[in-house]
Amino acid sequence: MDRRKEVIARLANMGDELLEEIKKNEVPKMKVPQRGLNNVVFNQKENILELGDKKSTRNFMNVAHTKKFMQSVLIAAKCKELVDRDKTASIRELYYQLKHTIADTKENTFEGQDESDPLIVDLETMLGVLREELHLKADDKGTIIGKITIEDSGDSIDCSKLGRSGLAIPSIVEHYKFKDVKADYVLVIETAAMFDRLVEEKYHVDNNCIMMATKGQAARGIRRLVHRINTELKLPVIVFTDGDPWGYYIYSVLKAGSMALAHESRRLGTPGVQFVGMTMTDIEEYGLDKVTEKLKDVDKKRISELQVYPWFQKKEWKEELQMMSDLGVRLEQQALASKSLEFVAEEYLPEKIKKKKMLP
Amino acid sequence: MDRRKEVIARLANMGDELLEEIKKNEVPKMKVPQRGLNNVVFNQKENILELGDKKSTRNFMNVAHTKKFMQSVLIAAKCKELVDRDKTASIRELYYQLKHTIADTKENTFEGQDESDPLIVDLETMLGVLREELHLKADDKGTIIGKITIEDSGDSIDCSKLGRSGLAIPSIVEHYKFKDVKADYVLVIETAAMFDRLVEEKYHVDNNCIMMATKGQAARGIRRLVHRINTELKLPVIVFTDGDPWGYYIYSVLKAGSMALAHESRRLGTPGVQFVGMTMTDIEEYGLDKVTEKLKDVDKKRISELQVYPWFQKKEWKEELQMMSDLGVRLEQQALASKSLEFVAEEYLPEKIKKKKMLP
Repeated sequence: MDRRKEVIARLANMGDELLEEIKKNEVPKMKVPQRGLNNVVFNQKENILELGDKKSTRNFMNVAHTKKFMQSVLIAAKCKELVDRDKTASIRELYYQLKHTIADTKENTFEGQDESDPLIVDLETMLGVLREELHLKADDKGTIIGKITIEDSGDSIDCSKLGRSGLAIPSIVEHYKFKDVKADYVLVIETAAMFDRLVEEKYHVDNNCIMMATKGQAARGIRRLVHRINTELKLPVIVFTDGDPWGYYIYSVLKAGSMALAHESRRLGTPGVQFVGMTMTDIEEYGLDKVTEKLKDVDKKRISELQVYPWFQKKEWKEELQMMSDLGVRLEQQALASKSLEFVAEEYLPEKIKKKKMLP
Repeated sequence: MDRRKEVIARLANMGDELLEEIKKNEVPKMKVPQRGLNNVVFNQKENILELGDKKSTRNFMNVAHTKKFMQSVLIAAKCKELVDRDKTASIRELYYQLKHTIADTKENTFEGQDESDPLIVDLETMLGVLREELHLKADDKGTIIGKITIEDSGDSIDCSKLGRSGLAIPSIVEHYKFKDVKADYVLVIETAAMFDRLVEEKYHVDNNCIMMATKGQAARGIRRLVHRINTELKLPVIVFTDGDPWGYYIYSVLKAGSMALAHESRRLGTPGVQFVGMTMTDIEEYGLDKVTEKLKDVDKKRISELQVYPWFQKKEWKEELQMMSDLGVRLEQQALASKSLEFVAEEYLPEKIKKKKMLP
């Protein structure tokens, strides 16, 4: 059975079970995996964040649950309609589609999107499907360029023939098909400006790689695309961020998944990714001490948080975070411009990647 | 003379004049147009924000000016090098490229990017050139799709053959060449989610238009691209934002330029653009009263600000802002999903555009 039919079947099955309970004069209920931090586990062996086994029961006859129960069913029904009709909707559109006043009452189905968003995640975890498979979209962000041809809705897009512009990565990439991949690896870059720099230097051409810009924290579309390219095409993925806790966290989300979306780590996370920089040892190695930036209080706080996360307990990362804390500085990708504009493309990246100077 | 040579000539000329003064034993100085609000004028006839004639003198022998003078010369020299070498740099890279300790002193050329950024704008206004023509980049953002072929760095990109993804709009679009434009108009859309909706509905195919997503406030690359398509290809441009003061301001920046960049309005602003929605009259017209959002204090404050801007004094906009204030609500693009997912593409936009129900 293809995945789309599988998703429809799971949604239909959920409705059938509720109907069954009603017919048997039982109380209709749904079992929802708990998503609090006490049910998020770091699987060290596979380097991935996972949801534990704890579940809560949402019971229609419990007045504290009734509204959420009704809302959950509305969302499930709308998602089934979306998948059936092969339409997608943003989570905000879903909210607007479902918001109405219940007949003969003054009660609204939803008061705000803050009521529908968490129930979407509940539905994902209950059914074991990705949000994208329910045809729901998050915001899109990010760009891809390099020797990969992507089939998208009937068009065959050669990403090495897009000038300096690159392809905009949509929020849903499930429909992408990959052809003619002639690259040796994927380089994922945090800042748009560094991506532009490397495009200008033709780094992807000279080093035969695919480049992606996340432009800050990676959106779901990028994370899924990285995962698919890594697992389906077996291409290594190297991540290049600022040398600060925010950059390191972008890396860890790409690698191990995130706490809020632990149920999706296996399809959004990519345990095989490696980290090329910026690292604190780069400061001495490349004489960058004049172009570091002092840590702000908010940076220091974030470092302390990272230091206790189980997935930052590898020796290399503990040292890295400790050194950052001791030095009291952060190091931006663009600080490499102090050497020369070409330095990052001609020396820094090729040298580190060739010598495999990367963090796990 | 082509524009690149013209820019190099202006930079060289600036240096020559300083040298001339030094040789004549005069004090080297530069005349910098003032950029404060007291020197920003709204040209009502042309519907564009402009910089007035007021200038300040930066004098090398005035100790209050000396550092800025030196910094301005460093920036001008580096920009000349960039244009000469046909390289571009982000404004952050420029800062890192110029930051160093002056020999035999403890004095740094720049302490932070907040020192270099305003001097870049000074240089633009002094020379009458766009930042992009100095080969300096802002962040990029935005997507384009539809029947336009863009030549970018040797590649010919047919933007109607990019699936649902679209082309990422870079920060610099000066090098774009347009070919094979078969569209009737350009639709510029505020939110990524609405852009995705219209792509999914094939609005651009059915209505023979080019679509762009600004994803919030339009970046310089988009503003310049809108300007170029409108003036060079004579295509009408229609803007579609949320019905709130933030969306209306996005429109006004696309149309008349911005206060901070008044010196660039003539090349970043596009006085001919029109506004299709969302408008406050849409609420009654399309029965959207259940899906409005209450104004927050910050929205109300912004409305009051817009109400006094000279470029919002047109009758239609005064009414619009007054109605928003009276109703106390805002109206999002995605609220149209409450009718149906297809409604925006099949009824709302075609009807309003056909009947020319647009704001000036």
